[in-house]
Amino acid sequence: MTVIVPRLVEVRQNVLKRNDLLARALRERFARAGVYVVSLVSSPGAGKTALLEQLLTTLRARYRVAALVGDLATDNDAERLARSQAPVKQITTGTVCHLDAEMVERALEDWDLDALDVLFIENVGNLVCPASYDLGESLRCVLMSVTEGEDKPRKYPTIFHGADLAVLTKIDLADAVEFDRGAALASIQAVRPGMPVVTASARRPNGTAEVLAFLEGRIAGMRAPA
Amino acid sequence: MTVIVPRLVEVRQNVLKRNDLLARALRERFARAGVYVVSLVSSPGAGKTALLEQLLTTLRARYRVAALVGDLATDNDAERLARSQAPVKQITTGTVCHLDAEMVERALEDWDLDALDVLFIENVGNLVCPASYDLGESLRCVLMSVTEGEDKPRKYPTIFHGADLAVLTKIDLADAVEFDRGAALASIQAVRPGMPVVTASARRPNGTAEVLAFLEGRIAGMRAPA
Repeated sequence: MTVIVPRLVEVRQNVLKRNDLLARALRERFARAGVYVVSLVSSPGAGKTALLEQLLTTLRARYRVAALVGDLATDNDAERLARSQAPVKQITTGTVCHLDAEMVERALEDWDLDALDVLFIENVGNLVCPASYDLGESLRCVLMSVTEGEDKPRKYPTIFHGADLAVLTKIDLADAVEFDRGAALASIQAVRPGMPVVTASARRPNGTAEVLAFLEGRIAGMRAPA
Repeated sequence: MTVIVPRLVEVRQNVLKRNDLLARALRERFARAGVYVVSLVSSPGAGKTALLEQLLTTLRARYRVAALVGDLATDNDAERLARSQAPVKQITTGTVCHLDAEMVERALEDWDLDALDVLFIENVGNLVCPASYDLGESLRCVLMSVTEGEDKPRKYPTIFHGADLAVLTKIDLADAVEFDRGAALASIQAVRPGMPVVTASARRPNGTAEVLAFLEGRIAGMRAPA
């Protein structure tokens, strides 16, 4: 029985190494095509799809945007996001708990990257496993809803450590759940010192303004709007 | 590169087979000692620890209760649950996204099962990976907070399919998030027809009464109180 564990570790390292190579190739393709790629990771139900729906709808006025959305089952999210009129494709993973670079590559096969400015990739809802898989993205956003508890970054450090931006979602519910913003920020900074943090509410008018401003700053830094 | 995938599947099957054997042995040990074992699975932040704190505090008056709590990092939960005065042990998994039977077995090494009536096992917050690992429990409860969205069972079917009881948590927030109870129940029944569903609020007086009544019925079915 002790033979199994070293083999599993070895095979897992091969899979991760292969993923890193594919992700590097994707990142180069995105850069050549001038596409800014934003991935979203979080617990199930933290509000990735609600945020994405608003971002797609707003950004569509100024950029050529599209999205890939991951889930174990159902294409509910793709259907919901299609209301934004942006091109959206569902990646259904079956029992796999994360997206990997190969799934992204396959989903992009029939898309022309040169016709895009911004691509969003919504991962499977999972605060653990997606942390290990680079998808070639320009920016990784980790979402954390105010209803989840302020200590989540300390309890799931790997995914916060690997992110570039934290978004505190459902901020409209902060009072109802007695959200302690100071404690949440301290928990984020303990795990990933210096990470920028913005807030969002998909239910308030202009509730995603902080996220939009952040993303537009980064997109502008990479390329001029089309 | 195509060699890697079949090997990974094979190794993963070996690991799962080994886990099933260990879980079967655990289940036999629990039965011999007359311990009723309840595991809790959910997304991060669905309220496993808050529910468990109340269950331990209330059940302690009538049963000899204890808990094992899993997290990637920190022993916050064990500290919090220790307020209930029940014996609690933290299992820290590092980067592993679920508990397995071997972790449970190891955590129990210095505990006398004959001195217990009820054991709770709180899994790592993850709606995907814990589904594959039997822990030898008598009852698997899946928690789903009203803030997560009604479609979670359809999106994460495996974990709901393998559970014995669904608990709708944070029911006090149902109005604030416009929770559609009918849609949530339909989603659960679509994935796991006939599964009992109860509601809970860790913030309301007697907010865990439905869960307590359900568990006490099951415990009584197994053995008379000590």
